[in-house]
Parts: sequence; structure tokens; C-alpha cells
Amino acid sequence: MPVLHDEIPDDSDFDADRPRGEFSHITPEDFIRDSGQGNPPGWLNAEEINWARAKLPLSYVEVVPARIDTAGCVKQVGTLLCVDDDGNIERTLITGRIRYHETIREALTRNISKDLGELALPVLPPSPVPFTVAEFFPTPGTSEYYDARQHAIALCYLVPMAGDCKSQDETLDVEWVDPHNETLDIFIRQMQGGHEKILQQALLWAGVW
Amino acid sequence: MPVLHDEIPDDSDFDADRPRGEFSHITPEDFIRDSGQGNPPGWLNAEEINWARAKLPLSYVEVVPARIDTAGCVKQVGTLLCVDDDGNIERTLITGRIRYHETIREALTRNISKDLGELALPVLPPSPVPFTVAEFFPTPGTSEYYDARQHAIALCYLVPMAGDCKSQDETLDVEWVDPHNETLDIFIRQMQGGHEKILQQALLWAGVW
Amino acid sequence: MPVLHDEIPDDSDFDADRPRGEFSHITPEDFIRDSGQGNPPGWLNAEEINWARAKLPLSYVEVVPARIDTAGCVKQVGTLLCVDDDGNIERTLITGRIRYHETIREALTRNISKDLGELALPVLPPSPVPFTVAEFFPTPGTSEYYDARQHAIALCYLVPMAGDCKSQDETLDVEWVDPHNETLDIFIRQMQGGHEKILQQALLWAGVW
Amino acid sequence: MPVLHDEIPDDSDFDADRPRGEFSHITPEDFIRDSGQGNPPGWLNAEEINWARAKLPLSYVEVVPARIDTAGCVKQVGTLLCVDDDGNIERTLITGRIRYHETIREALTRNISKDLGELALPVLPPSPVPFTVAEFFPTPGTSEYYDARQHAIALCYLVPMAGDCKSQDETLDVEWVDPHNETLDIFIRQMQGGHEKILQQALLWAGVW
Repeated sequence: MPVLHDEIPDDSDFDADRPRGEFSHITPEDFIRDSGQGNPPGWLNAEEINWARAKLPLSYVEVVPARIDTAGCVKQVGTLLCVDDDGNIERTLITGRIRYHETIREALTRNISKDLGELALPVLPPSPVPFTVAEFFPTPGTSEYYDARQHAIALCYLVPMAGDCKSQDETLDVEWVDPHNETLDIFIRQMQGGHEKILQQALLWAGVW
Repeated sequence: MPVLHDEIPDDSDFDADRPRGEFSHITPEDFIRDSGQGNPPGWLNAEEINWARAKLPLSYVEVVPARIDTAGCVKQVGTLLCVDDDGNIERTLITGRIRYHETIREALTRNISKDLGELALPVLPPSPVPFTVAEFFPTPGTSEYYDARQHAIALCYLVPMAGDCKSQDETLDVEWVDPHNETLDIFIRQMQGGHEKILQQALLWAGVW
Repeated sequence: MPVLHDEIPDDSDFDADRPRGEFSHITPEDFIRDSGQGNPPGWLNAEEINWARAKLPLSYVEVVPARIDTAGCVKQVGTLLCVDDDGNIERTLITGRIRYHETIREALTRNISKDLGELALPVLPPSPVPFTVAEFFPTPGTSEYYDARQHAIALCYLVPMAGDCKSQDETLDVEWVDPHNETLDIFIRQMQGGHEKILQQALLWAGVW
Repeated sequence: MPVLHDEIPDDSDFDADRPRGEFSHITPEDFIRDSGQGNPPGWLNAEEINWARAKLPLSYVEVVPARIDTAGCVKQVGTLLCVDDDGNIERTLITGRIRYHETIREALTRNISKDLGELALPVLPPSPVPFTVAEFFPTPGTSEYYDARQHAIALCYLVPMAGDCKSQDETLDVEWVDPHNETLDIFIRQMQGGHEKILQQALLWAGVW
């Protein structure tokens, strides 16, 4: 169980929102996020999140960002390029924890904003029913989904973006691809941990792959 | 099987799009819709639709119009007031046939436009998976859904409207209600044929009832 | 519109249940099915089905047969081997029309029984909501799904089989494969018309691919 | 953050699986469950669960038990009668926490077995996609679902039972009702916290209400 050490910097929330290998490192953003008059409700510090990760499945949302036409048809899907702890570039989707007393809608809005900026203007679905539920386990082979850090249950949504999407913070870039373009297959092969399956299922569910 | 009689006016498509009791009557709109240089592809005349109704299940879409806030949360749902063949006012949803070689999206757009006008600006869902499938039968008791005219399989969607909704043609009015307002229960009790169940399921699916 | 010619043999229903190329041929089964004291309700003769195919979208069910363990986890999926009109062997799923006044459950039971026999003991899902809706069009490129014969709207279900599955009639064989076996990729590449996408989506939806 | 006191008995897991009012009490079952050579993996003691409840949303499954016919049609649904901490009898569904490193299927099996016994023979769904996601909050009015103890995100499933269902432990009884029987409305009115909405949605989703 966690014990508070004030001198330990908080990187928990940063780390909680994106897979970064088995050990999480401290980055400048963590200090910025934790500076000042306190943390937002539901926020956990490093020890707390580590304790929770060893004891409980964590509730996550995972988002496939999309561009749609006026008929609702998906024309592009977005993937994120990030640098992991070993300096490798990885391609992934928007993922993030649902915090205490946060609705799924609030978690979606917050995590989309964190990765795509305040002007992304996400069009959230009217229902909380996800197109799939992805069960990530720290033990490879338990399911189709793997996360070295934790057991996470991710509610997965495809969310159209009506505004400008700009990569934020530690995200290198947001890359969009037409689902009928062969580049999509390259992108899918670059993804890991089962996120590629979530993207594939989103596209099949939307009827465009 | 239908035999063409040129003198029989075409009310099939009008009739096909809204339940009007056991016998369909001819209204001025029917002539307007059928006037001029021919009918749109997939359109059926009165004999054809009557033949099809006796031989095949018809593919329908059914739409619960909604107003949502920026978080995707349903704030209002719309119902339509129409006059049926016996002069009674009935409360219903947007329903319409999927025509030959028409996509579900095209059928949704066309039928929403027919009832709510060209400026309703529907936000169609990214997936064709409906929140429910309603099987209407002409024999009461076969399922929870009844349509005196036909066996229809309706794919049901909740569709947010971003623009101005104006009642069109034979629709008397479009009435909106907050799902938490007790007026909703009155509206639900005024609906028939199972359309009230579709509205209830839409609201439960959206998590607002 | 169809005109009755008594001398034209009925192959419509046979043909309606499996894609067989652009022109449908007559097989012994057709006569057997149409012999005797009449046809079942909702059955259409050749002319009627051809007329309907030119005028209306047809309602279909499509089934991915599965073997599951006691925890509900999919261990095998089945595909059918059939001979098409050009003598080519094709790999497909269970597909069939929903007849007039037939419930989706009845159509599922009848079509599964037609392809897998009376002892397949399908475990039908408690809800009519499909895992996907596949829109087949006779014009390639209109959607991800193609059927030379018709515009068909297929409600797609994964159905566990609890009994003995035996290929029937014109089906050469039913082949089962573990979703984690590389043979599955070969099977998927052998499928056409979008049926392979339905199989992929079924597996992703079930969390085993 | 929790601090271990060995003298505090563990009632956490018992309590975690069923709402029991704002304060949880210790019952004989808790000692039985915690006796002997240790607890199962993922099990939390009282302090740990209380800490988690103040810090994180907890992942839950909620099950509507059903009896279906051979066509998959729901003929009966089951509800549980339990005694809450104030001695009141409450009607509810099967609810339970998903433990660390437990799959959704394992959580469903364990929790169904806990309430209906080892011989209930649940027929688990082939997909982890729930018919709805219920967000329970300790603050009334945040959503349609209320749980005084915690923020819980419940994945909701309708699960047919093929075997004998017997009430276990603290459950007084399991009562089954035909969805078309007016008793169902009484049962629904006796349910609280939003569980009645989950039951209603299950029935509408199954097309039998």
C-alpha cells in the first residue's frame, strides 16, 4: 500500500494515460501538471497509481479519432505518434484513465483534449455503449490486449472531430489516413499491444474497411 | 402480382413512409410527388408497394430525433404529430422505407429531410449498427411491434439534429421534450404500435431515462 | 413486374439463399423443394424473386457459426465450402433471406438448419441487435459488400452451435478453424464479396482475433 | 491511504458485491470467506476496498439472469431478494466487482455462481460488449444510477441460465417472472438505484417488453 513521500514527484497521471514501457520516467510535464495549488479531483500521485495498478483493474477509455462527411461516413482515422521510454517511436490511439467521480463523457473530453488540443471539437456519441471492450492484462497471452503496466478495462469509442486537431505535449504528431488507402495497413502493422485490433474493429464497425 | 393500371394514382411512397391505418388514402402530396418527368430510382407505385407488402418483409429505418449538448448528452427528444386516416392525431417517430440501391445513410437523410426539412442538419452515426431492430408484423402479438400494413424490419437510430427542424407536409408538428420532464410519460402513452418502445429503448440506451 | 409462367421451374428460394454468380441455374433441389402440395408461406417463385431483386432491398440474415467453451469464449468458427455456377469452389458463411411474416429468429433457425442440418442445435442470441449490418449492392464499390444478384441488407450474428453440424444439400463441407490458427488467414483470403469482413468483425467483436 | 490493522476483520469483498447502504457491517460470512490460508488473488481487505472506493471508479459486472426457449427468446427474467443493512428487503440484480487480473468472463462466472450457485450453468455471451454501461455515482443526480458506497462502472449483460438456480448466502430468494406478466411492473417499482433501468433496458434490448 502506498505511503506518502512528499519528495517523490508525481508522474502518475501522465503515465497513467499512455503506455510507456515497464518503468515510467519523470518528464518536465509532470512537474508542470502537479505544480501550484493542488491537483484536480480524482487525480492520483505516483504511489497511489502504482498501488492501484497492483490491486485493481483500472477503468480506461480508448478513442479512435475520425473525420466524417455530412452523411456520417468515416473519411479519415487518426493515430498518434509518441516516443516511448526507450526512445522508440510508437503509433497508438488516444487512451486515458477514467478518474474518480468523472463521467465517461468527461473522461473522453479530457483525454481527447489532452492529445488533440482544446479546438478538436469532438462529437461525442449519444450512448455510453462502446463498440468494443478491450481487456488489457500485464501478462501476455491472457487476452488479445497487453499493457505491461496494469490490468485495464478500456471502453472503446470512435469519435468524429469537427475542429482542429493539434498534437499536444509528448505526442509527436497526429497522422490521418483514408481507410481505403494502403497506408492504413502500414499504420496497423506499426501498432502494438492490441491497439491495432481496436482500430481494425472501429473501421469494420463503421463499415469502411 | 401487381398489374399496371395507369389510372390508379400513386400514393405508395407517401404511404410507405408513415403508418396510416389499414387503408391508405390519396392526398394532394401524392400527385405532387409523382408529377413531371418520372420518379426517383427505387420508388414504387401503389400496386408495386401493395404487392411487395404481401410478399416480403420491407426494410425500414426508424429515427428518434434528438438535441444533444456539447458533451453528447441527450437534452431533448422529438416526436411527430400526424393525422391518421380516421382523422385521429397520432404521435410517432420518423419512419421510412429503404429504397432499392439506397444506402442506410441515404435512407436516413431522405426520411429525416422529409419530416424535419432540409435544414435539420442531422448528425448521422458513424456506424450502421442500430440500437435496436424492431420487427413490425401485420398480425398483432407476433412481436412487440405492430403495423397493419406490412411486415417491416426497422433499423432504429437516435440521430442528433444540429439545425432547424420544421414539420413538413402531412406532419402537424414536431414536439420536443426533455427526457427528465414528466411530459415524456404522456408522450410515450400516446404512442402506439411499439414506437413507444423504440423511444424508451433509445432513451435508456443513451443513459437519460 | 413478374408474370406467371407455370412452365418456369422455381429456383428462386434456393438461389436466394446463396450467391451463385450473376445467373442462377436450376438444380434438382429446386424441383424437390417446389414439388407437391405447395410452398411454405413467404416462399417466392423465380419470377417473383427476380422482380423483387430489381425493385427492393431484400432482408437477409448472415451467420458466423461458432464453437464456444463453457465460459462463452469462441474456440472455433465455421465456414462453408460451396460450388458456384462456374464450378469454382467458394468459401462463405451461412446467408439466407428473411421471408414474409418470418421472425429473425425463425429465419436464423431455418437457414442454419438448411446449411448445418437439424442437429446443429444453434444457441440463438437473446437480442435481435446484430453485431453488424452489411449492405450488399449489385454495383461494386457502393459499399464494402458486393452481391451481383441484388441489394441485400444482412443482419449479421455469431451463433454458437451446441450439436452436430453436417453439410447439407449443395454445401460441400463445413470447415472449422481455431481463430488463433494461421489457417484462418487463408480462409479469410478465400472469401469474397465482403463475407470475409463479416467474419473478421465477428472475431474482433468476440475478442478472439 | 489504507494502513493495515490486522485486528480489523475483512468484509470488503462481501460488501463490494452488493449495495448495503452507506455503512457496511460485518457478517459471519466475512470471516468464513477470509478464514484459513489466505485470500484469492485480486481480493481486497476492508481498508483496501475503502481506500479504492474513495479514489477510483471500480469496475463491475451486472447480470440480468434469464430463462430462454430454444429459439433464444427470453421467457423469464430473475431478480434477487436481499436484506440490506437496515433490515429492509431489497430487490436487485446480480452485481459484483471485477478483480485484479480477472477477465470479464471470469468475473461473470464467479458472481453468478456466488448468487445463483454452482449449478446455474450460465450461458455467457460470446462478446464482451455489454448491452449497456451503467455509471453509478455516490452523489445522487450525477447520472441515472446511484450507489452510496462508490463510483462504479458496470458492464451489463443478460445471461441465460441453463441449470438450477438456488439463492446463496445472504440472498433470500431468486424470483423469476415472465416479461409479459404484470408482476414485472411491481418488481421494477421495487428496485432502486437504477438497477430497474438496467432490467428495463435488458428487456427492451431482447425485444420482449
